Amino acid sequence: MSDLIEKLNWRYAAKRMTGESIPEEKLNTILEAIKLSPSSVGLQPYNILVISDKTLKERIFNEAAQQPQIKESSHLLVFAVWEKITAEHITQYMNLIAKTRGIEVASLEQFQQKISDSILDRTEQTNFDWAARQAYIALGHASVAAASEHIDSTPMEGFNNAKLDDILELNKKGLKSVVMMTLGYRDSTSDHLASAKKVRRSNEDLFTAI
Amino acid sequence: MSDLIEKLNWRYAAKRMTGESIPEEKLNTILEAIKLSPSSVGLQPYNILVISDKTLKERIFNEAAQQPQIKESSHLLVFAVWEKITAEHITQYMNLIAKTRGIEVASLEQFQQKISDSILDRTEQTNFDWAARQAYIALGHASVAAASEHIDSTPMEGFNNAKLDDILELNKKGLKSVVMMTLGYRDSTSDHLASAKKVRRSNEDLFTAI
Repeated sequence: MSDLIEKLNWRYAAKRMTGESIPEEKLNTILEAIKLSPSSVGLQPYNILVISDKTLKERIFNEAAQQPQIKESSHLLVFAVWEKITAEHITQYMNLIAKTRGIEVASLEQFQQKISDSILDRTEQTNFDWAARQAYIALGHASVAAASEHIDSTPMEGFNNAKLDDILELNKKGLKSVVMMTLGYRDSTSDHLASAKKVRRSNEDLFTAI
Repeated sequence: MSDLIEKLNWRYAAKRMTGESIPEEKLNTILEAIKLSPSSVGLQPYNILVISDKTLKERIFNEAAQQPQIKESSHLLVFAVWEKITAEHITQYMNLIAKTRGIEVASLEQFQQKISDSILDRTEQTNFDWAARQAYIALGHASVAAASEHIDSTPMEGFNNAKLDDILELNKKGLKSVVMMTLGYRDSTSDHLASAKKVRRSNEDLFTAI
């Protein structure tokens, strides 16, 4: 078995954490893996809030998501996507490509036109759903990166998104939360799932080789 | 820089591939990473088609997605999600948990009730969007696993989903395609992006530490 698969077998969604902080270097590796995750046309239509402030985590626990790992985490990541995707976003992206690669923005005109045509004609809801999916790829990157650093991570849906957006004032920033992830260390004594066997569908059920 | 981050910097979405097959062991590692990816309540509401058949890849290229890496890939992964989520799916999942952990299904009654209440009351569209997001986490796992094995992977949207579903007869299986990924080896001579600098938003732009 590869080292990566061993680490992915080790991982599980910890429901209780110890409150211990994770080393900054490991946090940075996880964030870098998020930054390097692919997204459709490369737009990265999301922002990630990296919350270690205890008071804020307490408030989120009390008002938006009563799951103990929020308070017991080292860091809470909130994946928030752009509420609307605008021509300005696409222009900024073109500028970033041009700057990064040392080329003229004008040389990207065809690419800009192509992605503008496909994105800006769609409804806000379609673009929001599409942006959310891109954020979930980043969540997948974070999941593997955390496991590879032997850091526990718990993806979380099912919270009060509107309340969380209020607490974090995301609407002022044109953002909407879609999913969260706690990072920290599992509390094996409090979490009976820590020792439970991992449940996964069989290869035969999940995959079809053609 | 960690080894993982080095590999993620190496990866990019190859637009041209060489047609060479990837070793079975590496394919299996990527599929295992998909299998081990987290999903909401652990349901894994998707199936993955693993296509190496050249005639079928040719047909998909001709009729649903004219991107050369489809024909030039070693394997094409199609992530397809359950069109509807039913009580039967949830019952099967409870049976799987019970069997895996050697416990009585009856002991899961409370959990079954809880997830049935939250899932079965939602619209088909809401559940479809939710299932698609879970598939994108798996896509993120595949992305990191492929890079860690030095296998190129290209996530792909923007194909003709309805046509692809027809070709693969997914509707007969209660499935709908949401995203694809080609696996193989980059063709650096044909793909000018192989040597292009990776474009990513800055940490300051992407992350907010609180």
